[in-house]
Amino acid sequence: MSFLERVSFNHATFGPTASFRTFLETVVETGAGGVGVWTERLDGLSPAAAGELIRDHGLAISGVNRGGFFTGSTTEQRNAAIDQTLRQIEATAELQADTLVIVPGGLQPDMKDIRVARDQVKEGIARVAPFARDHGVRLAIEPFHPALSALRGVVNTLDLALDVCDVHGEHVGVVTDIFHLWWDPGVYQAIGRAGSRIFGHHLCDWKLDAVDPVADRGVMGDGVADIPGITAAVMNTGYSGWMEIEIFSKDDLWTMEPSAIASRCLGPARVCLEEAEMLRKI
Amino acid sequence: MSFLERVSFNHATFGPTASFRTFLETVVETGAGGVGVWTERLDGLSPAAAGELIRDHGLAISGVNRGGFFTGSTTEQRNAAIDQTLRQIEATAELQADTLVIVPGGLQPDMKDIRVARDQVKEGIARVAPFARDHGVRLAIEPFHPALSALRGVVNTLDLALDVCDVHGEHVGVVTDIFHLWWDPGVYQAIGRAGSRIFGHHLCDWKLDAVDPVADRGVMGDGVADIPGITAAVMNTGYSGWMEIEIFSKDDLWTMEPSAIASRCLGPARVCLEEAEMLRKI
Repeated sequence: MSFLERVSFNHATFGPTASFRTFLETVVETGAGGVGVWTERLDGLSPAAAGELIRDHGLAISGVNRGGFFTGSTTEQRNAAIDQTLRQIEATAELQADTLVIVPGGLQPDMKDIRVARDQVKEGIARVAPFARDHGVRLAIEPFHPALSALRGVVNTLDLALDVCDVHGEHVGVVTDIFHLWWDPGVYQAIGRAGSRIFGHHLCDWKLDAVDPVADRGVMGDGVADIPGITAAVMNTGYSGWMEIEIFSKDDLWTMEPSAIASRCLGPARVCLEEAEMLRKI
Repeated sequence: MSFLERVSFNHATFGPTASFRTFLETVVETGAGGVGVWTERLDGLSPAAAGELIRDHGLAISGVNRGGFFTGSTTEQRNAAIDQTLRQIEATAELQADTLVIVPGGLQPDMKDIRVARDQVKEGIARVAPFARDHGVRLAIEPFHPALSALRGVVNTLDLALDVCDVHGEHVGVVTDIFHLWWDPGVYQAIGRAGSRIFGHHLCDWKLDAVDPVADRGVMGDGVADIPGITAAVMNTGYSGWMEIEIFSKDDLWTMEPSAIASRCLGPARVCLEEAEMLRKI
């Protein structure tokens, strides 16, 4: 499979204002084969119509954003998150996509035991997993960097995400996002443990002087993460899925035009994947 | 031992401008028994003279900041860090303090494998440990939150810090700082593993909306960390050392007068320690 055939761009990489159609056209111009989409950014199209438009552009969907946010201090909140995730599973199926990304959810001022919140994520997954299976949708839990444990993801290591997966069928897996995982002393071993349960791999970098873990992420090579090494470990599990470029970059990428953003990312992505392939051969 | 007898204030809690003497006087007024000092903030006094002044105020030293920063891309850099740490060990002995805090060190633009940097920390500790032992100084490795792995501490879990300690004598241990450790799924177990190797315990909190992991830390109770639970776990190891209030808080505490800062921290510290004692009895 050629480099471009396995590269995907996430809509978020083009910033908060690039329209769905601009996004698709930009990606088509690069020659990349996949797109990571957000259900709230389909230019008002239904998921079914958006899926058709994507296919008309010759593109495949690497992942749908997003479900989850299963944590909360009230039952109402947690039930609402489950309902919302069920709707996202339906949207994923209507898009004819196979994978919904699951954001675990964070904490609130009155939640001061992260272990309780982690149990809520387990419960949330358990409550949506059968519905996902019935819709032919895979759930890809994304472990979040501990800098975002409080805001977004109490499941903050790959091992924790796999603990959640363990009790479910083969349609519940993980996303390995380098930004979130690079710091973890156990990450290489955990990738091996994940095996066939890696449903997505996100390329990005951790900038040495990152000021904001939400929207100050780096283009591959601009930071200090071992992108080739982690990516090689993922490939070594037999992963042959998408290499998705997902970079939240408020002060850098997002100040640029879509086509410039795409070029800025594509070269470094190619270098990283070539280095990863080299590492595999050593 | 009464609450105040085991509470210490770190100089940093009073911001970057409070002088050494102001710091000591403020702490004496609170009735707290200990101070965490920084060798570069002794009002120009020699460590020996500063130690005497501290004792004249009826205070003890909970810890000395700081040595370490053992990582670097050149041998010269790493050797300089070792020399600097040897000088800090001497200063700690001259202060008649027993514990030097060790900051592991972070990454640099040309360091893209955090595992190599972790090995440099191991090597650094190995090279200063005998000198510390000969000077009667304990080295307390402080694991850093992964948000600061790149900037300050590639040793980013308590377990990793204990791995470094394992090959040394009983004078090489750790600091358990709640801000750095609260997110870790393995923290409670690692505290048990640490046992008698906990040489300091830092009280602070992780704010839900923290904007900067260096200088936007919370007063106990203002955030989402399980301070009583983690502190109870530390107590359960038999730890009877200092409860040090160390809060880097640029936009909150550091805008206040020293005495106001002390009062603002002392009440919440008391509540947390009482809750921790309660948890131990359950």
